[in-house]
Amino acid sequence: MSKKSPLAPARFPTLPAVAGVKVAAAAAGVKYKGRDDVFLASLAAGTHIAGVTTRSKTCSSSVEWTRSVVAKGKARGVIVNAGNANAFTGKAGAEGTRHVAAAAAQALGCKPKQVVVASTGVIGEKLPGDRISDAMPKLVESLSEKNWRAAAGAIMTTDTFPKGAGTVTEIDGVEVNIAGIAKGSGMIAPDMATMLAFVFTDAAIPAPVLQKLLRRSADRSFNAITVDGDTSTSDTLVLAATGKAGNKKPKSVADKSLKAFRMALDAVLTDLAQQVVKDGEGAKKFITINVTGAKSAESARRVGLAIGNSPLVKTAIAGQDANWGRVVMAVGKAGEPADRDRLSIAMGGTVIAEKGEGVTGYDEAPVAEHLKGQDILIDVDLGIGKGKARVWTCDLTHGYIDINADYRS
Amino acid sequence: MSKKSPLAPARFPTLPAVAGVKVAAAAAGVKYKGRDDVFLASLAAGTHIAGVTTRSKTCSSSVEWTRSVVAKGKARGVIVNAGNANAFTGKAGAEGTRHVAAAAAQALGCKPKQVVVASTGVIGEKLPGDRISDAMPKLVESLSEKNWRAAAGAIMTTDTFPKGAGTVTEIDGVEVNIAGIAKGSGMIAPDMATMLAFVFTDAAIPAPVLQKLLRRSADRSFNAITVDGDTSTSDTLVLAATGKAGNKKPKSVADKSLKAFRMALDAVLTDLAQQVVKDGEGAKKFITINVTGAKSAESARRVGLAIGNSPLVKTAIAGQDANWGRVVMAVGKAGEPADRDRLSIAMGGTVIAEKGEGVTGYDEAPVAEHLKGQDILIDVDLGIGKGKARVWTCDLTHGYIDINADYRS
Repeated sequence: MSKKSPLAPARFPTLPAVAGVKVAAAAAGVKYKGRDDVFLASLAAGTHIAGVTTRSKTCSSSVEWTRSVVAKGKARGVIVNAGNANAFTGKAGAEGTRHVAAAAAQALGCKPKQVVVASTGVIGEKLPGDRISDAMPKLVESLSEKNWRAAAGAIMTTDTFPKGAGTVTEIDGVEVNIAGIAKGSGMIAPDMATMLAFVFTDAAIPAPVLQKLLRRSADRSFNAITVDGDTSTSDTLVLAATGKAGNKKPKSVADKSLKAFRMALDAVLTDLAQQVVKDGEGAKKFITINVTGAKSAESARRVGLAIGNSPLVKTAIAGQDANWGRVVMAVGKAGEPADRDRLSIAMGGTVIAEKGEGVTGYDEAPVAEHLKGQDILIDVDLGIGKGKARVWTCDLTHGYIDINADYRS
Repeated sequence: MSKKSPLAPARFPTLPAVAGVKVAAAAAGVKYKGRDDVFLASLAAGTHIAGVTTRSKTCSSSVEWTRSVVAKGKARGVIVNAGNANAFTGKAGAEGTRHVAAAAAQALGCKPKQVVVASTGVIGEKLPGDRISDAMPKLVESLSEKNWRAAAGAIMTTDTFPKGAGTVTEIDGVEVNIAGIAKGSGMIAPDMATMLAFVFTDAAIPAPVLQKLLRRSADRSFNAITVDGDTSTSDTLVLAATGKAGNKKPKSVADKSLKAFRMALDAVLTDLAQQVVKDGEGAKKFITINVTGAKSAESARRVGLAIGNSPLVKTAIAGQDANWGRVVMAVGKAGEPADRDRLSIAMGGTVIAEKGEGVTGYDEAPVAEHLKGQDILIDVDLGIGKGKARVWTCDLTHGYIDINADYRS
């Protein structure tokens, strides 16, 4: 494992227990030695599930499996391994996924198609499914409501710190808990393909509503981050709701009783997504890009991602260089509606360029000071509409090259 | 100037004289000291012009000017400066462009709107147009049919070598010459925004036909290269045809008499485009990506560019790592029709993955040997159609970070 990211949080957070959810971690030796590499969650009967997965056309067999579980809206378990992505592994890969799901189902007393499966690690190598099924007794034995840190650690690949977030909120006056873990060190880590996140709540929410809630929140969190613009074959985000909190079931995503829950879910997913960026390969600075004045929110998000994915913008920030010309370039290349002569750019709150040209004689000192810090803020106003979005990314440093240009062997 | 790229050609080529075209270079001190930084071309009366420019929404004022010249189809001159892109400079920028065009027009005895203008360099700084007009007498004095190398040198910014290509071909049995120069060290060089190319021929070709010829050839050459996926605010490619060769004018782009000329133009533009990639920032390896079996040629090109723009693929090649999983990932993220289970990948001619899974026990030795070289070949067959395309890129090394994370000052 590499040195811990300088942007890592001081400690793993204290996550609330979620009624109906137990988690466990164990060392199955899939690839790594001497560390936990499998994660099992047991979910109470009646748990609803929602999920969003990678749009990659070369997705892994576990992604295909999990999509079919999510389509039915119910789940009783989650089994995840690190060290092998089981992607691009043909029929043997699909058999591996089935084997692992069946083993978890037997251990949990449910059907295989009620088990979410995710794999993360090297692409193109056969999954040693036996090692995972062999670890099942150990996993079941250590299932507990309090194992969040161990669970977050078991799904890491090139991550430099375990990622968790949780909160307590309410639906219709009834207390509801949310806890989640994630992994990812770049949209894709080297060889190790995947951003994975597993979020649990004891709220009672029907599957169709849960799915809409998740998609909405994912667009504001995981779909608003980028490290290198490379989309994983295995990206998976699932949200399980056990219903054990006993709240009155909301009828739609717009239900007033869900107001606090929506905000709480946004907060948990955003926290997890930002932790993934903060563990971005080689990252030394965390960059927030606010885009306003766009034609629409979606257009604003695309402009933000064009800036956040630009290697020239990311290297400029790494070099602590207020090179706003590169931001102009990135806005121009986004392919979204924009008007050069209405475009304004600020860094760290100081307006540097306004309405199509640089601000003459602007005070560079506070901007230079801002760029020396770890938290960088870029505001871009397109000046043509009311759409806005926020995107998070990290800088591009020698560390990224070091990690990714290493020999595999 | 940085050390010359290890991929640079051994020497600047001998370019043919093009009847009706004279070029000159001079030191105007726009930004650089002690080197030529302006390029002037005079074009014979009756010269037709075609051009393709950046699709950036934040294009420079010189790009806007050149578009209006190209729209009329006729030109008598070309004036280019290095060191200042005159982009994002508001009204002062547009005035600077007019000033430079007027000065060149006066020197050449034509109208300002018959002069192509291009600027390359820092974004956001006012163009010192006076320095360029002051250099005009010197430029006019040294106009000659043989100044290609000096001209190519005068438009360099972070380029490490001057780029030229030319050939002799025929239209309807009449000998016709083509000569061109280009600059670019990445789609965008650091601070220095621009890929510029100026190509001249003495062929007699009407402007509408010339424009179609250029667009077709540009799609196969400049639009098939990528260094970092960042689109310049100033990209400009123009093709001027003086008509001095005296061939019979072709009536359409499909005219049989143009067969040799089309191939020759493709060859010259491809040569120039490849030189730009070979001068890619930090490049140590030149990568050719052949995509076959796609739904269409355009789809194949997009898949090729997704691979060529992937920082994970480019760092793997830098690390001489046959990491074909990253190629799978890039195909998956391209957003184009693809079927994981029909996808095949070869490196250096050795098939590594076939029909959705890695080839068991393939011989890694020849692939490892191939990846140690400077010329890397990646073949990707999507297996779903007949579309094909070829894309060129370079590897992503520490050199790219060094160049781009430097402080501007």
